[in-house]
Amino acid sequence: MKANSLIQAARGGLLNRRAFLLSGLSLSSAISLPALAGGKVGMDKLADNLPDWMKMPGGSDIEYGLPTKYEQHIKRELAPSTPETSLFSIWHSPIQNQRGVITPSGLHFSVNHNGLPDIDPSKHQLIIHGLVDKPLKFDMESLLRYPIVSNIHFLECAGNTAPNAVSLTALDQNAQELFGQISGSEWSGIPLKYLLMEAGVKPSAKWVIAEGADGGSHSRSIPLDKLLDDAIIALYQNGERIRPSQGYPMRLFVPGWEGNANVKWLHRLEVTDKPAFTKDESGLYSDILADGRIERFSFHMDVKSVITHPSGQQVLPEKKGFYEISGLAWSGYGKIKQVEVSADAGKTWAKAHIAHPVLSKSLTRFTIPWQWNGSSTTLLSRATDEHGRVQPTRNAWRDKYASYSFNHYNAVQAWHISNDGRVENTYV
Amino acid sequence: MKANSLIQAARGGLLNRRAFLLSGLSLSSAISLPALAGGKVGMDKLADNLPDWMKMPGGSDIEYGLPTKYEQHIKRELAPSTPETSLFSIWHSPIQNQRGVITPSGLHFSVNHNGLPDIDPSKHQLIIHGLVDKPLKFDMESLLRYPIVSNIHFLECAGNTAPNAVSLTALDQNAQELFGQISGSEWSGIPLKYLLMEAGVKPSAKWVIAEGADGGSHSRSIPLDKLLDDAIIALYQNGERIRPSQGYPMRLFVPGWEGNANVKWLHRLEVTDKPAFTKDESGLYSDILADGRIERFSFHMDVKSVITHPSGQQVLPEKKGFYEISGLAWSGYGKIKQVEVSADAGKTWAKAHIAHPVLSKSLTRFTIPWQWNGSSTTLLSRATDEHGRVQPTRNAWRDKYASYSFNHYNAVQAWHISNDGRVENTYV
Repeated sequence: MKANSLIQAARGGLLNRRAFLLSGLSLSSAISLPALAGGKVGMDKLADNLPDWMKMPGGSDIEYGLPTKYEQHIKRELAPSTPETSLFSIWHSPIQNQRGVITPSGLHFSVNHNGLPDIDPSKHQLIIHGLVDKPLKFDMESLLRYPIVSNIHFLECAGNTAPNAVSLTALDQNAQELFGQISGSEWSGIPLKYLLMEAGVKPSAKWVIAEGADGGSHSRSIPLDKLLDDAIIALYQNGERIRPSQGYPMRLFVPGWEGNANVKWLHRLEVTDKPAFTKDESGLYSDILADGRIERFSFHMDVKSVITHPSGQQVLPEKKGFYEISGLAWSGYGKIKQVEVSADAGKTWAKAHIAHPVLSKSLTRFTIPWQWNGSSTTLLSRATDEHGRVQPTRNAWRDKYASYSFNHYNAVQAWHISNDGRVENTYV
Repeated sequence: MKANSLIQAARGGLLNRRAFLLSGLSLSSAISLPALAGGKVGMDKLADNLPDWMKMPGGSDIEYGLPTKYEQHIKRELAPSTPETSLFSIWHSPIQNQRGVITPSGLHFSVNHNGLPDIDPSKHQLIIHGLVDKPLKFDMESLLRYPIVSNIHFLECAGNTAPNAVSLTALDQNAQELFGQISGSEWSGIPLKYLLMEAGVKPSAKWVIAEGADGGSHSRSIPLDKLLDDAIIALYQNGERIRPSQGYPMRLFVPGWEGNANVKWLHRLEVTDKPAFTKDESGLYSDILADGRIERFSFHMDVKSVITHPSGQQVLPEKKGFYEISGLAWSGYGKIKQVEVSADAGKTWAKAHIAHPVLSKSLTRFTIPWQWNGSSTTLLSRATDEHGRVQPTRNAWRDKYASYSFNHYNAVQAWHISNDGRVENTYV
């Protein structure tokens, strides 16, 4: 490694970003940035080899834009556990191909317990009843007149990264397979407190049962306090009406809480004094602790991070040289405060750069420059949120839960880099 | 109007948002929010009328999600001046249907001067040459190893809202037709300063000619200082690779500057000591002043705003009552500082709520509660940016430019509300 010690941030080739950027030219030649050896551009030669698209008029644009055919391999993929014929389907987002913190709506992860209902919005109603002074019924037109707020938030399934929680050996899977149940969007909708205030919640009310209009009546019990805090009836995602797999025409959105509680195709909110213990919360979504006790209503998604570039099954294109390590961090409790990265399997750590604005309960992008010396090593990332919550090691996480428990796994993720540049999921 | 004077923010029914929200129930009944008269929900009756989708399993999800068929009317529309058969096409974004500040990539506006080239990324190269120490050539693989930054920014065509600049009478058009050449995205790409520093810019360099790989070699001259400041080679939009109509596989992105300067399908940057006066900058994109002089290289998009809800050709669903006024503001010079709204044709103004985070050179959403009394009136919005730049009146704008000049129109927009609730473009 040629980079001098002034710009070293930790061992294993992690660089100090500020020093790296300020060093400019001299550094770039020192660390062999790609394409340095461009040489003189032969414009004459270039002209002889102009591609067709530079020599003829282009094609037509379309009413609703789509990705180019050259990127069609970037798509959601079904989890192996839920075949396409199943009503219960889990679609993973290709986070190893995403940059920034907004997931395109077409690539947002999706978990469906009873297939996708095809809802005619003109026949859909939202009902609020139970322990209220005045039960209410809304159609789309009346709802769309309420104040609408917009916020960028992550959404994560409780079962995201389950393979690393339960598999005794680290499976050779990519970031999409292991971490693909996390996405980020700008969600817009009506603060639920307005509707609950209008209905007049009775003093005895403590919970709300949220029910979807899908064939299986997906239902979750949500504490009333959360709904009066930052929950919304989400009607828009990334600027347009939410899509069928996100709950069209409306879903409950409870920022920072497990995906399953964000009830899709929402049609009924029943205000009650106790939870309903529905099949959708007492089954898959309870967590079994190591001593056999059960942790119910564990809604928050804890602080977590993953390096997406490079990540599982990718191959570093050169034997050694400069790379930017880039990844995502998030916490269901608030803002990300810092992310540390190790390039020597956890012996030394450096603080990564956090991209601004840092938003609460939102994906946060971290980056750090890395000069790989070509030897095998292991990359780790460890996030801390504004409340001081830190990602545990895998062993610490597994000590807390039963060996077959898989929800809310948030341990530090490790990617092993081989001499040949291949990146593979590993445990440390 | 029943709302009491404590919550009045300006005449014409504009309400103080904080007072409105705190007033809760008593206010909601006072100002006749919709759907108040829900009455007891008849759950028995409801069960008899369950829609089909609540009684049967749902359908399959798909690899790349799309909007529901019920929203297919929300689409980009061709400007009447550029028919579908034309190589020069202008596609307008439906901003009257957008919420938040992110435009879905499929609905982002698009202006194409020579049709859409179908570029194979494996054969595309970016060349930097001219007044540099070391000309450089990059393929996609080498570019993708550079540091990537992400920022949410607006993009606006210089000609946006041209009808209101040149038409002597206010045309009865909707927000998409009048304002549809503005969109917001999270753009990710490589800071151009890294590449220019690596090439080694010579002291005599002042400008850079950016050329696209489309059949017409769309070209613009950009001051070097801007490229060393915040310009990027944009590779990603809203988390996925940019789409063909946004310049796949790469475009120049110069935050806050007129759309045309953000050269799509970028393949060549020539560092020079003077501008090239290309056809694409000396023709359509020069501005003619009232005295006949020509303003060249007027890159910045000035401070501007528009109320999107309600807006042109919409009809308020009730004769009178509560509405949330919502709109977009932006400035190519930095952050939006405030937006004022008038509901009495400009006689009185109230400060609208600005949604956070307020980002530089980005769409900013403003809202204000409004109690319409049912009489005809005119709604206006007026934005101010952090540098104190304020939107001019239409007359002030027209006094500056020739009568047939239409670029960079940023005057205060007025929407007239008739007794029957219809909203129409108007001049004040």
